[in-house]
Amino acid sequence: MEVGRLIEAGLLAEDGLAKSEGGRRSSLLRIPHTAGLIAAVDLGATSTDVALSTLGGEILVHRGEPGDVKDGPRSVLDGAKGLLSELLAEQGADARDVLSIGVGVPGPVEHASGVLRSPPIMPGWDGFPIRAAFADEYDAPVFVDNDVNVMALGEHRDGVGKGEDNVLFVKIGTGIGGGIIADGHLQRGSQGCAGDIGHICVDPDGPVCSCGNKGCLEAMAAAPAIAAKAEQCAEEGLSLRLREVFEQRGALTARDVGEAASLGDYHALQIIRESGRLVGQVLATLVSTLNPSLIVVGGGVANIGNSLLAEIRSTVYQRSLPLATRNLSIVLSELDQTAGVTGASVLAAEGVLQTRVG
Amino acid sequence: MEVGRLIEAGLLAEDGLAKSEGGRRSSLLRIPHTAGLIAAVDLGATSTDVALSTLGGEILVHRGEPGDVKDGPRSVLDGAKGLLSELLAEQGADARDVLSIGVGVPGPVEHASGVLRSPPIMPGWDGFPIRAAFADEYDAPVFVDNDVNVMALGEHRDGVGKGEDNVLFVKIGTGIGGGIIADGHLQRGSQGCAGDIGHICVDPDGPVCSCGNKGCLEAMAAAPAIAAKAEQCAEEGLSLRLREVFEQRGALTARDVGEAASLGDYHALQIIRESGRLVGQVLATLVSTLNPSLIVVGGGVANIGNSLLAEIRSTVYQRSLPLATRNLSIVLSELDQTAGVTGASVLAAEGVLQTRVG
Repeated sequence: MEVGRLIEAGLLAEDGLAKSEGGRRSSLLRIPHTAGLIAAVDLGATSTDVALSTLGGEILVHRGEPGDVKDGPRSVLDGAKGLLSELLAEQGADARDVLSIGVGVPGPVEHASGVLRSPPIMPGWDGFPIRAAFADEYDAPVFVDNDVNVMALGEHRDGVGKGEDNVLFVKIGTGIGGGIIADGHLQRGSQGCAGDIGHICVDPDGPVCSCGNKGCLEAMAAAPAIAAKAEQCAEEGLSLRLREVFEQRGALTARDVGEAASLGDYHALQIIRESGRLVGQVLATLVSTLNPSLIVVGGGVANIGNSLLAEIRSTVYQRSLPLATRNLSIVLSELDQTAGVTGASVLAAEGVLQTRVG
Repeated sequence: MEVGRLIEAGLLAEDGLAKSEGGRRSSLLRIPHTAGLIAAVDLGATSTDVALSTLGGEILVHRGEPGDVKDGPRSVLDGAKGLLSELLAEQGADARDVLSIGVGVPGPVEHASGVLRSPPIMPGWDGFPIRAAFADEYDAPVFVDNDVNVMALGEHRDGVGKGEDNVLFVKIGTGIGGGIIADGHLQRGSQGCAGDIGHICVDPDGPVCSCGNKGCLEAMAAAPAIAAKAEQCAEEGLSLRLREVFEQRGALTARDVGEAASLGDYHALQIIRESGRLVGQVLATLVSTLNPSLIVVGGGVANIGNSLLAEIRSTVYQRSLPLATRNLSIVLSELDQTAGVTGASVLAAEGVLQTRVG
């Protein structure tokens, strides 16, 4: 019945009959090229990426440019729409060819309404009607989700998570977030905030987090925490290398710590290991709970050095149930910048297929 | 296509056409009474429960009797099969009317093979072919899962979890386990051990668990831990009430602690609160991760007093993200003994529908 409706809607076409295996013969199905284009928008804290893909998931063209979500929704979304128009024109297409739009944003999204709820790093976006912002140009449904969920979809479609049904994607950057693929599907939970692992408490006596609670994973292990610990090390004169960079620039970044560690700085290495241990501790709990076959670690901090991944692995394998880790791999993301737009196009394609069938 | 196959297999029947809403009219479907019976077997550590239900989920008859899984698979499964034959005969049916069999067992099950893997409290069951044990009498597929997953299915079908898409079921008894319903489906993870939350580490310096690790939730908060703390209290003379019962019987149970607490015993209450706090701490992490709308607490320890639930609630609401707990309820199970057979019948019915379609 669903298939019949998709064919009526022009999103599927019959392509002959399958070989008989006894019983009724099945039709072979394909997605027709006339089905239309998918527009993918990936808004980062300081970047806007846009892509066009087929309904089948093939990215046709991808373009990114700097942008600042702090400029507010009107300016940022106008920028994204401008990029989209450029890409469409280059493909000899226009807004009418767009079947569906997927948007990833760096903040918590209420799934039912597609609206951001109190996003900490996006002033002016709280409750802003992102879907409506596309309605003046596009007669297409708009699907919005947070960037980590969208990256998890991307990893599952085209990254190391391809073909795996139970994947945990973890982004470690300015914040820490998770995206859960269970039984082949992205899990959003009852309010759309599933995977929000950055605010799991890892130390009730830890430092105060931007969310107001104490000892959240994010407050103790993400990029700003790594930088703050390094600056303290520099000020106390424990690490001469960190001190030198700190005196030159007046501030340190997680990347500086990674570089110092790669040059053999003991304290830089300890700071990275401490982050890895805390992330690993939370992941061990999630492994016992969800029994994934793969954990993919991405985000800006993921690449500051091998010792982070090594410490995450060692903590997870030590603290999870042996049965749950027997076939578990923990790897770095390989998709990098394209995970977002790939995932946003999956979001849009899955969304429109469900809408047209429903 | 799927619907067509179910009709061919006699598991669905067309029942006229639905009212037109534009487009192709849909058929109304029903499960025919001739589809057959579902057999449900719920093996507890010290009990065997058996039921017959319709494919639609209605329990027709349910019977339980004492049994000990330590007697080994042949004796226990023969007992269950004997009970099943009795129930079938009473319904004027026989083994040929059984379409599918669902079995819940108190140990970890490898989902693909339906076989127990190193079950701690079931000597002689490791790798035993439970499915094959039914093959001499029944020409029906057998689906095996662990008791907590099966209870979660039961709560979702007929208990307080009915109609909720994101439910966490937690059983606190001799052990601690979880069953995860996400997006309407039971989640088993890649190896079938999702939900195994009893061995999440809550204190790296805690007591040694039966699994060999230190400070597992189960080792610190389940019934034996509650009893052990109470016995220590009694021996140290801290609680006169616990000491009195201990001297009478030479041992204490979690139930004794619950009774002492309900009579106002300070130390008994503290022991229960400590268990609730530790369970709540793990659940807070799961709430941030999975964003369920409902947590159902069941098992023998769940009912030892209101203070356990109160402490679980207070810890979860304090330590989870506010967005994740905005619409979260935490309640006690109301199904009690029938959760297992209800869930086993859901397991069997879902299994056979998938098999016949596949």
